[in-house]
Amino acid sequence: MASSIKVHGIPISTATCRVLACLYEKELQFELVNVKMHEEEHKKEPFLSLNPFGQIPGFQDGDFSLFESRAITQYISANYATNGTQLISQDPKKMGAILTWVEVESHHFDQAAMKVIWELCLKPMLGLGEADAAVAEKGEAELGKVLDIYEKKLAQSTYLAGESFTLADLHHLPTLDYLMGTRSKKLFEARPHVNAWVADIMARPAWAKVLALRTQ
Amino acid sequence: MASSIKVHGIPISTATCRVLACLYEKELQFELVNVKMHEEEHKKEPFLSLNPFGQIPGFQDGDFSLFESRAITQYISANYATNGTQLISQDPKKMGAILTWVEVESHHFDQAAMKVIWELCLKPMLGLGEADAAVAEKGEAELGKVLDIYEKKLAQSTYLAGESFTLADLHHLPTLDYLMGTRSKKLFEARPHVNAWVADIMARPAWAKVLALRTQ
Repeated sequence: MASSIKVHGIPISTATCRVLACLYEKELQFELVNVKMHEEEHKKEPFLSLNPFGQIPGFQDGDFSLFESRAITQYISANYATNGTQLISQDPKKMGAILTWVEVESHHFDQAAMKVIWELCLKPMLGLGEADAAVAEKGEAELGKVLDIYEKKLAQSTYLAGESFTLADLHHLPTLDYLMGTRSKKLFEARPHVNAWVADIMARPAWAKVLALRTQ
Repeated sequence: MASSIKVHGIPISTATCRVLACLYEKELQFELVNVKMHEEEHKKEPFLSLNPFGQIPGFQDGDFSLFESRAITQYISANYATNGTQLISQDPKKMGAILTWVEVESHHFDQAAMKVIWELCLKPMLGLGEADAAVAEKGEAELGKVLDIYEKKLAQSTYLAGESFTLADLHHLPTLDYLMGTRSKKLFEARPHVNAWVADIMARPAWAKVLALRTQ
């Protein structure tokens, strides 16, 4: 039977991979529908009916659709609560802690990380010119400050929102994967609790399955 | 009896007001603890124990604390589910729609709105110099594109996530309030469904109570 879940995106996109990692953690069948970015399929119908902002990924579960990667992962985690890894909590206080670090990833970590990733990975990969050293360094300085706070937090608990792996950790995987392939890896290695956390979450089988999609 | 809920912030801060609007909608008692920003209290202990990123608001409910305004509002809405206005949903699909538009507010609306608000409101208010016309215009152009998508959405449903007022709408109130005091108001007035939505949500009694805190 064809899966009712479809992810419209590409496996090099961090936002797409955030959703894919969640689906593998929840042990759900899905179809990855490749969006031809070079033909700007994401800026045209029918994609715009999935996401009017024209950004990947778009998501469908039967006749229900939604967009924004961090909303999609929360939907999957709630709608398929009894499948695979428990990534959220029914307890409002535990969920509050998860959501606080989901917001931290979105507003602090990702903002700094994407500056570095754009300059050091995506610009060269997409043939869009040389890295701007000043922008990359600014991103690294911001990222270092964020990681100082992560180091203190991860000295207190194994994962960001406590002793269990949750969406708060999972959301970092796609950006961490890019950063580990750059000189910025040293920012993580210099902080022992952060370093152990990165090694732990990147070793998850679900993440290996996401990476395998890139070589298909 | 003293309230167990404390919000550490100031009533001109958009992030603080997002939390205050939620508390009033939920008809909860709380204490607003003024943070002396000019003395940089938010960059020192004990505030940093509430939010290690040194940003307002910080939030306490008894001995439980958390930060990030959009995580705090979700915690309040879930932990006090039976109080006041229902701002979230137990149904995963309805909640998915709410969270999609919560993310849109955070990643699209707020990013554009804060450029305009910083230049046209906060810089003059805080005596930090003249508005940079080019930055304000860039913000207005971005905001206009976002509002074009809102106009289509609000032609289909009264509120962003359906026929009920939810957190997805509420999160816009503090930024909308600033924007309505600037020339950017015309961007909203030019779009009839957006204009009706703004008038509707800004007329909520809970929002009037937030504004009243500014004159105390």
